[in-house]
Parts: sequence; C-alpha cells; structure tokens
Amino acid sequence: MIQTPYLLFLGDAPDTLAAKVAQGIKDWRPDASIGQFRLEGCKADMGLTDMTIAEAKEAGAKTLVIGVANRGGMISEAWKDVLVEALELGFDIASGLHNLLNDEPRLVAAAQTNGCWLHDVRIPTAAYPIANGKKRTGKRCLAVGTDCSVGKMYTGIAMEREMLARKMKATFRATGQTGILITGQGVPLDAVIADFMAGSVEYLTPDNDVDHWDLIEGQGSLFHVSYSGVTMALIHGGQPDALILCHEPTRKHMRGLPEYTPPSLQTLRDTVLPIAHVSNPDCKIVAISVNTQHLGEGEAIAYLTEVEAEMGLPTVDPFRQGAGRLVDALEAM
Amino acid sequence: MIQTPYLLFLGDAPDTLAAKVAQGIKDWRPDASIGQFRLEGCKADMGLTDMTIAEAKEAGAKTLVIGVANRGGMISEAWKDVLVEALELGFDIASGLHNLLNDEPRLVAAAQTNGCWLHDVRIPTAAYPIANGKKRTGKRCLAVGTDCSVGKMYTGIAMEREMLARKMKATFRATGQTGILITGQGVPLDAVIADFMAGSVEYLTPDNDVDHWDLIEGQGSLFHVSYSGVTMALIHGGQPDALILCHEPTRKHMRGLPEYTPPSLQTLRDTVLPIAHVSNPDCKIVAISVNTQHLGEGEAIAYLTEVEAEMGLPTVDPFRQGAGRLVDALEAM
Repeated sequence: MIQTPYLLFLGDAPDTLAAKVAQGIKDWRPDASIGQFRLEGCKADMGLTDMTIAEAKEAGAKTLVIGVANRGGMISEAWKDVLVEALELGFDIASGLHNLLNDEPRLVAAAQTNGCWLHDVRIPTAAYPIANGKKRTGKRCLAVGTDCSVGKMYTGIAMEREMLARKMKATFRATGQTGILITGQGVPLDAVIADFMAGSVEYLTPDNDVDHWDLIEGQGSLFHVSYSGVTMALIHGGQPDALILCHEPTRKHMRGLPEYTPPSLQTLRDTVLPIAHVSNPDCKIVAISVNTQHLGEGEAIAYLTEVEAEMGLPTVDPFRQGAGRLVDALEAM
Repeated sequence: MIQTPYLLFLGDAPDTLAAKVAQGIKDWRPDASIGQFRLEGCKADMGLTDMTIAEAKEAGAKTLVIGVANRGGMISEAWKDVLVEALELGFDIASGLHNLLNDEPRLVAAAQTNGCWLHDVRIPTAAYPIANGKKRTGKRCLAVGTDCSVGKMYTGIAMEREMLARKMKATFRATGQTGILITGQGVPLDAVIADFMAGSVEYLTPDNDVDHWDLIEGQGSLFHVSYSGVTMALIHGGQPDALILCHEPTRKHMRGLPEYTPPSLQTLRDTVLPIAHVSNPDCKIVAISVNTQHLGEGEAIAYLTEVEAEMGLPTVDPFRQGAGRLVDALEAM
C-alpha cells in the first residue's frame, strides 16, 4: 500500500488538465494531500500550500506522488533532481507514467540507498486472461465520453459515494492511474497488452451480488483516434448494463488532436449503443454527465436543461449538482 | 533475418484453424516450407511431408517455425522436448506466441549452447508513438471482418500480388505474427501496449507516394469482444481510404465465443463505416472478400452472386477467383 499523506508533484505542467492526476487525488482524497510542489513555469495549481521537499517532510508527507502526465508519459530530466532530493529525505515516490520510476537508474539507486519505495501504479500486477465474453452476475455501469478528460472518473467516483450513502452495493472500478492512486487498486488499462485489454476489464469486474453495481471508470473515447481501442475494450469487456454519456461542451477540438472535432452527444449515443449491445443486448443509456467547469452557473444550468430536453435523459453536472439523479437513473432500471 | 527454409511445427493443433500460422506460410511461401512436424494427436495437416527433426535437418531446413497458436499463446510443455532437440541439431526457432521462446530457460540454454537464434516475432521492435491522427499522403486499404480468422490476411497478400503484377505501387503491411513471418517485417499489433496501438499502425503506414497503396492486414473484428479494441485501433490508426469486408459464411458462432453470433455483412457495413469516417471522412467500402473454403464450388459461386446483388459491391473469394476484382475496385476509386 502507498503511504499517505501525499506531497503532490506538479512539475512543469503546462496547464491544469496536464495535472489531472493531482487534481483527482486532491478532490477525492483531500485528507491525504498535504501540499504541492511546483517547478518554475508550472501553470497548474491545486490550491494547496506550495512546499519545498524539506517543508513537506517537516509537515509529515510520506509519499511524493507524480501528479502530472505529459504526452507520452515520460519522466522529464527536469524532474529527476527533485525526485532524488525527495528520496534522499526518505520519501517514497508513486507514479502512473508509462515510463517507469523503476527504469530510471538514478532513482533506483537513490531509493535503494535510502530504503524507499518506487511505486509504478501503471504496471499491470496480474496476468490478465483473454476475454471470454461470458455473462457475469451483478450490474455494471460504464461512463463513456465524447472526448478524453471530460469527467468520466469524477462521474464514477461521485456515483459510488452517493450509492454507498444510500446503502446500495457499489464499487468504483479504477482503470487509470489517478483512479488507482485514489482507490488503491484497479487495472492500469492503457498499459495492458492489446490482446488482454478486454480480459483485464472482465477480471476487474467479476461475478457479484445481483444487486451490486460496478461503476467502471471510462477511458478515452470512441471518437479519439489515439485511444479509441481502449474505450472499445472497456465496452466489450465491461458488458455494461447502463451507460452514462460524459461531455465537456466548450471543447473546441479533441484533446491533443487539433484536426478533430468532438462528436455531439447524439452521435455518441447512436455510435456507442449498437457497440455495447454486442456484449450486452440489454444495455441502456441512462443519463448524461456534463462537465460545466468552463461555464458560469446560469449558463451551465441552461445548457443542462437544454440537453436534457433534447436527449430525453437526466442530465447533470455531478460536480455542481451531485450525482443523485445519476444514481436515481440506475435505481429506476 | 529469419533463415529459410522452414520446418513448420504443428505441435498438437486441435484443428487446422489453430495452425493458421503454418497454413499462411505454406500458402504464401511454399518455396520456404520444406516439411511439417506433428506431435501425436495433431489434427492439422499442411499437406507437406511429415519429417522428424533429424530428417528435416538432412533435407536442409534451417529454422523451425512454431506454426500453431493455442489460446493464450502458451508454449506447451509437450512441445519443449522437441524444440530442445531441434536446437541441439542446430535449428533456429521462430515463434509468434505471446509467451516468448526467450523466456523459457531450457530453450535459452539450448540455444546458447548450440549457437542458435530464438526469434520472437511477437516482440515489438520499435518504441511506437501515440497516434496523432494527422492525415498522411498515399492510399490505404484495410480488411475488416465479421469475425477473427475469416481471411483478412489472405485478402491483403493476394491483393498485393495482383497489384504488383499490374505494376501498381503496393505494400502489404503485416500486423500479426504470420504476416510478419511471411513478409519479414511488420507490427505485432496484439502485443502492443494499449496506449500505443493506433500509433503503431500510423508508424507502420507512413507518408508515401500519392499513388501508393498500403494493404493493411486486419485483426480481430469489431464484433469479437476479446479483440475488438485491436480492430478499432487499426481503423483509427490506419485512416483507410478503402475497406474490404471479409466474411466466412458457415461460421456458427464467433471464434472462441460460443455465446456470440457473427454479425451479417450489412451490420458490419453499417457499424464500421461511421467509425472509419472519424479518422478519414472519405473512406469507402469498396468490395467484399468471402472465404468459401467450407462450401462446394457451385454453392460458393451462388453465395457470392447473392451477396454481390444484396450488398451492391464486388464480392469474390480471392482464393478461388483471384484478387483481380478487389484490385479493380481500388483502381476505380
């Protein structure tokens, strides 16, 4: 297990989206986030106290968590001096990047010398099977997005909280590094070998009580050409009974792909449902979760009302309004 | 480079489909296939001379190729004695299985002692990028199937031969172990890490002459829940201008998934085209390739005629009829 509290390392994040790992941990485990460390030029800010490594040590932090994901998942040269400094002060380090802490000789040497752990949460920790497509007991809900980074993880965690508060049986199933750092377990799906992707999702969401809901963390988008295969494996491995469509209405182009326009919610609906019916003919789209962080309150409510009328589905921003109506939609099934 | 000629190792293959690696090599490089080795109980037969390891050595074989793929890609215990015997006689071994020759201590030791090579063609040999979705020059054609193992690779290689015979610029781009063993290069797509799948396909099919065609080997099926994510990455990474639908009309259920019925060609058409338009709005379905090996000649021709009328697209079995009309369809674009 990864020791808390955390110092969230934001590095040289060019914007807040690049630090979404840190943002997720800060939002869902504020108790565990003692401060933030930023390099010069960092454009992200979690609103936590900026600390040097020594100050964080003094404040009781046990683990430095790499809270920033740059394109390609590299461990930047600019970071290494700081990481070594942290190891020398006795910090563990946790990371969800593709490039592994444990592949960096300087970090490995410093960790060994100082008796510290390097946690690479992106490394798959099980030998996943090839998916067999067999129907499993229990219910599953999957968030699918018009794009990457539109609030799929938030939606799942917020629904789990609400369901547990209602004494429903529910488990958030993490499929990405932030989710794994928040919950302490999961499948790092984007690091799984292609042939085993869908099987790893079956493994993550096994047979369960008939009234139990897995809330599966979505990844990528069927419309994001870099990662659509991962999304596909989630849909076919997850066999969802319920889908929540996730959307960010101010996005001008697909994340990281300036030539690509995000699809409408109608297009997402019409595309995803036939695909979901391959593995679960009873799958239904039950609600829409919109990330309205870039809209004012009035604008946001107007937009949500409009989408709800157009799509004929409960439409909420769980961050502004809570996940109650999303959970109502599951209960109504 | 892998030395020829090959001895094709069929192991204890339960049926001919399980030995499709051997079948592909035998069909497309008959010059390189000197004989076959079968264990007791083997139900596959390439029609080559059955040889002991010693007989194959005597006949001049240089490399034993694992021509059988069992579910999960394991190197069976039953095989290892034979493989060690081959190494002791100086054979190299080539394999496309998930489990690597180079991870088997007995094989590694025998190879080292005898100065032989263990070729694991499934190991990705490049650091693939994350897909950027940018439009590339040149043309691309992708075979997509109603199921796995319906003739996608055959279709691509047969089209390449026909196009080269017509002096067109064309390159078959292998994405699976058999294709790589046949052509000597490619991307072992099902062994690529999830995040890099689409990028590996972009890498495999770079900018080219405007009148050059890449014939991209298809994998899996959008309707095969174990592997649909791989198919998705091929479509979005490949940016195909032309799709060929591939089908095997006698298949009762999806390969390896007894609970799943294969889709109709109409369903495949209606599902794949909107998905392909995400990465290439000009993509068209140009022809249909049917594997009629389980039909009699008259039955096959009647079926092809019927499908052609129903679908309004040139419909052929390239194995029976050649790939001429498939290539005509590309030339007509």
